[in-house]
Amino acid sequence: MGHSRRDFLSAVGVSGGAGALFATMGALGLAPSAEAATKGTFGPPQPSDFSLTGRSAKKVVILGAGIAGLTTAYELGKAGYDCTILEALDRVGGRNWTVRGGDRVTELDGSTQVARFSDGLYLNAGPARLAQWMVTMDYCRELGVDLEVFTNSNAQAYIYHQNMSAPVRWRTAKADVYGYVSELLSRATDAGALDAALTAQDKERLIAFLSSFGAVGDKASGFKYSATSRRGHSVNPGAGEQEGTVLGPVPSLSEVLASGVGQRFAFEFGYEQAMLMFQPVGGMDAIPRAFADKIGRQRIRLRAKVTRITDLQDGVEVEYQDRHGRTQKIKADLCVAAMPPHILAKTAHNLGAEVQAALATPTVANAGKIGLEYRRRWWETDEDIYGGVTATDLDLATIWYPSYGYGTARGMVVGYYNFGAQADAYAALKPAERERRAIEQGMKIHGAKYRDELASSVSIAWKLQPHIEGAWVGWPSRQGAYQLLGKPAGHVYFAGDWLSYLIAWQAGALESARKVVTELHQRVLSTS
Amino acid sequence: MGHSRRDFLSAVGVSGGAGALFATMGALGLAPSAEAATKGTFGPPQPSDFSLTGRSAKKVVILGAGIAGLTTAYELGKAGYDCTILEALDRVGGRNWTVRGGDRVTELDGSTQVARFSDGLYLNAGPARLAQWMVTMDYCRELGVDLEVFTNSNAQAYIYHQNMSAPVRWRTAKADVYGYVSELLSRATDAGALDAALTAQDKERLIAFLSSFGAVGDKASGFKYSATSRRGHSVNPGAGEQEGTVLGPVPSLSEVLASGVGQRFAFEFGYEQAMLMFQPVGGMDAIPRAFADKIGRQRIRLRAKVTRITDLQDGVEVEYQDRHGRTQKIKADLCVAAMPPHILAKTAHNLGAEVQAALATPTVANAGKIGLEYRRRWWETDEDIYGGVTATDLDLATIWYPSYGYGTARGMVVGYYNFGAQADAYAALKPAERERRAIEQGMKIHGAKYRDELASSVSIAWKLQPHIEGAWVGWPSRQGAYQLLGKPAGHVYFAGDWLSYLIAWQAGALESARKVVTELHQRVLSTS
Repeated sequence: MGHSRRDFLSAVGVSGGAGALFATMGALGLAPSAEAATKGTFGPPQPSDFSLTGRSAKKVVILGAGIAGLTTAYELGKAGYDCTILEALDRVGGRNWTVRGGDRVTELDGSTQVARFSDGLYLNAGPARLAQWMVTMDYCRELGVDLEVFTNSNAQAYIYHQNMSAPVRWRTAKADVYGYVSELLSRATDAGALDAALTAQDKERLIAFLSSFGAVGDKASGFKYSATSRRGHSVNPGAGEQEGTVLGPVPSLSEVLASGVGQRFAFEFGYEQAMLMFQPVGGMDAIPRAFADKIGRQRIRLRAKVTRITDLQDGVEVEYQDRHGRTQKIKADLCVAAMPPHILAKTAHNLGAEVQAALATPTVANAGKIGLEYRRRWWETDEDIYGGVTATDLDLATIWYPSYGYGTARGMVVGYYNFGAQADAYAALKPAERERRAIEQGMKIHGAKYRDELASSVSIAWKLQPHIEGAWVGWPSRQGAYQLLGKPAGHVYFAGDWLSYLIAWQAGALESARKVVTELHQRVLSTS
Repeated sequence: MGHSRRDFLSAVGVSGGAGALFATMGALGLAPSAEAATKGTFGPPQPSDFSLTGRSAKKVVILGAGIAGLTTAYELGKAGYDCTILEALDRVGGRNWTVRGGDRVTELDGSTQVARFSDGLYLNAGPARLAQWMVTMDYCRELGVDLEVFTNSNAQAYIYHQNMSAPVRWRTAKADVYGYVSELLSRATDAGALDAALTAQDKERLIAFLSSFGAVGDKASGFKYSATSRRGHSVNPGAGEQEGTVLGPVPSLSEVLASGVGQRFAFEFGYEQAMLMFQPVGGMDAIPRAFADKIGRQRIRLRAKVTRITDLQDGVEVEYQDRHGRTQKIKADLCVAAMPPHILAKTAHNLGAEVQAALATPTVANAGKIGLEYRRRWWETDEDIYGGVTATDLDLATIWYPSYGYGTARGMVVGYYNFGAQADAYAALKPAERERRAIEQGMKIHGAKYRDELASSVSIAWKLQPHIEGAWVGWPSRQGAYQLLGKPAGHVYFAGDWLSYLIAWQAGALESARKVVTELHQRVLSTS
């Protein structure tokens, strides 16, 4: 009697995962279709939940206006919870941060950059891409955030390794690698080297597949790989007698293997990175801004830095420093701490030594990004590259061409997006030096225009971002500390991508918040 | 003295192709960069060309307001040529045709459909995708046509063959095929079966590549392929303890080969089809509409059906039937016939038997498309498919999910885009029957919602389109007839994608028009 059907389903969902939930729903005749089974089903709290149980909505203080904190307030707000968010920064979104002209980027070492980007141009300094299967897509739909394709892969973009004489386009690298792989496997198959594994019919089908996959010659040619239009053209097909000239010459098998280009391909097959991917139109911060509008800006206290969390017998008290430097206190029934674990670990609390040790357990990863505004879109006009990513073994790691504003005047290239030691190396430099280094490296791929057409830049070193101090975290194990923080400490819940299997993705924060919202609401419904 | 530098370069470009042009430009110190060498350089006629030579712009009649005709008028207009376009249809664009709510689709058999599509939804009945390297992209920039990604490939879309028990997502098919290919080639390589072709270092590098490419096990496992997250998940990774469940079970090697899924992959490697691809925002007809605006609508006579072309000693006379059924005549210095060859072949002319035979030489191909408007975007909400193409061996060939309006209420699916016998089979049906058949086939992939959520449809059979009567043409050879029509017949030039190596692409029409414009302008500049 104390449980609605959705409460029951939520309980199943929490304990057994989405698979168990769907099995149960199927048994109840509720499962919409098999295809949707990859996603858990989340039932947001509703005002009617209280009328069913005789309970009432509580006061909740949420620490951090990143994606997890915002989602928590948004979902609890649907049932009338009285939520207040404390956020140390002067903006919502946390690592979801879109930098535009006029924005200030201050780092912990005291350096400040003021972005001089043109109107309409932006840098998504944090998350920049959404996978179709991620719940982020559903929130964009629900929040009315318009989406467009994020160009994570492009056959026209380059692969560049320092052992290569020149960058090679992805399409060319694929043609060569797939061609030689097909030639080799066809020959081995035809020679009987795989007869133990293949029936005669398998062999025939495999060779037919390889003929198509690698565009290789027939048996009489030794299944020879030679240049086809898949490589691209040095002269494009055109009108009249212009048949076009296929790009050549084809490097040898040894050269292709030595270049290492093939090692780049797997990126595109990843469950998280495979195209198509998406981005909000106009900047990733459309998501936190839409959340904040729905929550009500008056519920969000910016420049409110949490200094102490005190779990009480009947609730929780949070002390914070407000925008004027004054210490303030807020009392609530429950708290959701949606800050990075390493920042929480530096915050005074009475949640116990085990919680403190758990918060200090994950290792913090660094990442860096630089936005380079160019006066003209030379990658489009000169190189026929409309979006996508160039992969390198330079310390800039990757160069991203913009996924918006095609064919317009100016554009924003991401000059590096790198992690770990590479990100640390750039973080150690002043912004002007980062720009110089990124340009110097990028010129190896794009030549002098990469320097000459530059208008301005802004760089981010995530480990130097105040109140964030890192890009994401890693867990040595999903036992112990991770599990402990997956449960509330008294009246304090923890939420964030760091408490999910989708670390460094907004979807992890969204899923974690949904889990906490479900658990917190169940607690409120089941306790007096 | 009669030739400007650009004229000289144009002459080189025409006779030697873009490669020769660029070599010449390089010798003159004009080549902008090596990367751009794939494209020819086109110098549009300019008013100053006449002041240099003492000649003047002529009157040109252009037959057909498809892409080739519009481009011809647009480029000649830059130098002040007095162009008139005669177009049999009541719209510009030819096969570039975007169907919206209220538009009528009449076919040669007399059937008429009136599109009931919702506002903002459209079907690109003809061309629908632009490759980055095609000159179409440059025209979009020049004309101010906004672009967005056309989703030609999507890891979340399906491959469905009738021998399969269920459709499989592209990502899953790739994981399995690449996994088994890597397992087999690793084993053959490691066993020494390819020692004649590979050095020890090659072998090591090849096996390292295959480990990444196929995500296969190590040597101790026999380089065994087993399921990884690249296949997708039956339960997605989520928060807390929800690690996710990789989609299984993995079919056997024989099953994967028998399914034929791997035969689909090469599509994505094609020079013309590889992602990224693009489309104009709001519909492909943004291109002809922009052309028409630049040309001046008063220069374009719609519903003007050409009935006779007469080459004269000093020019050309074209007879046509106007919108009121009256016969009209127009006289001009020169003519550019930018109609389909098989329509020209049915038009009276005095260009001689050889030209007539040449016009009748290419074979006409058919194609068909149906736009299905759905009341909700179930492919997004239920199946996490945001754009892309499902490939099948059904007679519908492919299903396209829309590349615009992500996350909105309604959407337009292309229920078939097929050629040849498949297109003929649908063309033989009445529109209502085409819809029924397309739905019946598509339900094999998407189930009952494919029928139940349908709002309305419009179908096109290109061979039944008045004044067009086909999708594109094919040449038995590029000798003879093709070469003859590449030259003017008296005062009549021929232009169209059918006179290029880019047949069925707008780029072919654009390049052909540029070639004719260059040649025509040179003639005007060099003759009195």
